[in-house]
Amino acid sequence: MTNSKRQEIIEKLEKLGKDLKKKIDNLENPSLKIPLRTLSNAYFDENDRLIKLGDKKQTRTFFNVGQAKKFMQTILVGAQIKKLLEQKKPAISTRQLYYILKHTIGDSKENTFDDQSTESDPAIEDIEVSINALREELGLEATPSGVISGPLIYQDIKTGDVIDCTKMGSAGAAIPPNVEDHVIKFKECTADYILVVEKFAIWNLLNQARYWKKNNCILMTGKGQAARSDRRLLARLSRELKIPVYVFCDNDAYGYYIYSVYKQGSINLAFFSEKSACPNAKFIGLKTRDIKKYDIAKTNWIKLEGHDLRRLKEISKYEWFKSKEWQKELKEMKDFGYKVEADALVSKSVEFVADTYLPEVIKNKDWLD
Amino acid sequence: MTNSKRQEIIEKLEKLGKDLKKKIDNLENPSLKIPLRTLSNAYFDENDRLIKLGDKKQTRTFFNVGQAKKFMQTILVGAQIKKLLEQKKPAISTRQLYYILKHTIGDSKENTFDDQSTESDPAIEDIEVSINALREELGLEATPSGVISGPLIYQDIKTGDVIDCTKMGSAGAAIPPNVEDHVIKFKECTADYILVVEKFAIWNLLNQARYWKKNNCILMTGKGQAARSDRRLLARLSRELKIPVYVFCDNDAYGYYIYSVYKQGSINLAFFSEKSACPNAKFIGLKTRDIKKYDIAKTNWIKLEGHDLRRLKEISKYEWFKSKEWQKELKEMKDFGYKVEADALVSKSVEFVADTYLPEVIKNKDWLD
Repeated sequence: MTNSKRQEIIEKLEKLGKDLKKKIDNLENPSLKIPLRTLSNAYFDENDRLIKLGDKKQTRTFFNVGQAKKFMQTILVGAQIKKLLEQKKPAISTRQLYYILKHTIGDSKENTFDDQSTESDPAIEDIEVSINALREELGLEATPSGVISGPLIYQDIKTGDVIDCTKMGSAGAAIPPNVEDHVIKFKECTADYILVVEKFAIWNLLNQARYWKKNNCILMTGKGQAARSDRRLLARLSRELKIPVYVFCDNDAYGYYIYSVYKQGSINLAFFSEKSACPNAKFIGLKTRDIKKYDIAKTNWIKLEGHDLRRLKEISKYEWFKSKEWQKELKEMKDFGYKVEADALVSKSVEFVADTYLPEVIKNKDWLD
Repeated sequence: MTNSKRQEIIEKLEKLGKDLKKKIDNLENPSLKIPLRTLSNAYFDENDRLIKLGDKKQTRTFFNVGQAKKFMQTILVGAQIKKLLEQKKPAISTRQLYYILKHTIGDSKENTFDDQSTESDPAIEDIEVSINALREELGLEATPSGVISGPLIYQDIKTGDVIDCTKMGSAGAAIPPNVEDHVIKFKECTADYILVVEKFAIWNLLNQARYWKKNNCILMTGKGQAARSDRRLLARLSRELKIPVYVFCDNDAYGYYIYSVYKQGSINLAFFSEKSACPNAKFIGLKTRDIKKYDIAKTNWIKLEGHDLRRLKEISKYEWFKSKEWQKELKEMKDFGYKVEADALVSKSVEFVADTYLPEVIKNKDWLD
């Protein structure tokens, strides 16, 4: 972490504490104003085309039986994060922070925390939204999953290493757990666009074909549902390089959803979504119309089942799938009654995805927005 | 893939086909002798300390109502793999092979395959054991998951890139989907040992602390249950470099099992296990005795529940956990009644795992074998 970023966060946390101390010194009830992270305070911004957290705030006070413990937990988390940053400790996981903070209070039988997902994780999120900083900026890192290849050179500030994503072999470059600008600095990128594929098997096929070289693009996969740093990396690349983003998924409700998380984020992580969304991303397939257009054999269609239809119905109600073209696509799939995996395109030929489907769809702008 | 490996596999598949043709020419019932992959033909070899596939074979004949379809499927898989290798196609996934092979037979309503996991995957495994080659050698690759760092330099034969695992930043080097010697060639390794950690969060802590530099070791994680290529990479490193392997997991039945899969493999993948096992691996923790020895706060112990106790009981019956020291450990955990995650050690201090626990345990050989 750069010293300036560390100092910035420490000062924000210090201000939180000083404001609190002022109230105590004035004999007021200590309280924190925390942006509400409930579903009712998350919304889809039609103009920016991304999910945002609204303006509603809740006041958490210490002298309140229902809030005192949560108040204490939030302060404990903030204080511990500040301490770790001041001591220049390496980043830890949210699970590790939970273990550091969990202890029995004095001679009581009461613990500071008894559960990670319902107690310390929400307190971390409260601190994130209160000081407007992602947990990665607070020195808390999650497990990454994706890989990337193509004409991108970045410097890893933590280690000093320079990573050239054209030279990472058949593995590609592992996406780091933290890709914020205080850790990852883009040094050079000449790519014309970014191609994100849902599944590793398709990424592997394209990477072996040197698709990124022939098409001068960045090629990445989050291996299914993307991890936090995969999404943040895509958002940073898209915003800072100002190049198009194309997302290639299975032709099913789950593929559509994975695309939408890359593009707009998700309601239940609205604060993170605002920072990790990639509103200019296009869905380049598989679309229902591709099945007939590219003559995919019927033996490789999969009949929609109850759970597929339920998921389709849910998705069709999301604000960000309300556009005419998406409603048409969702209806087409429902009427057609089948879904098709991107892997099925390999039955046309091993080269079909790399040499025909993707170049054609991108050239013809045959995508959904 | 190197040409010599490709040629070797093609010849093995050709022999399979020629033997079959000879039977047909002699007007015999075409048949294949396939090593049995059932649990009854897998066993733990006490001397080599690894799980092996036994000598039992089954004969699969074409003129047999119960076997004709399976016979056809095995031949289709073998023929398709040979064709892809001859055409020097890139590696594909087992799912993609299924889609390539699935079609309706002639004018019938019968498909060659209707399901991947019960039909094409078993046929792939039949081919693997019949010609004694892993699917990666047949050009079939699975999704990898692990990362690695430390003094290891390897060449990726597919791309020509040379990967220096000391220079891979905070991400580490992604473990490739195929690490067989026709794809990955070790060029230089000066490490004294290999440390495998179960979880990414611990790997991340150690990688940030440059543990691999201070202790001159290779540091890897499979992020939980290891993928095929993670296991094969460890097996190759351990066999070819002839250095010790230490596995660091949670102190619970699942951690023990993850260790045992790295070390001996698993019964239901006996053929793969024989080639990916790492019999010299030691379990360096967490052990039940560490909890008191290192004074881990009781608030960070987790009470054993029904599923923990059931898993403990199952594990205690496995041949490879029958040693006196393991039986003692399993009983100790049961009597103690608690499990502890490796992450809990961070509550001692952020540096505790890297600076105290691991160096001490390794120096004192305080492990389980």
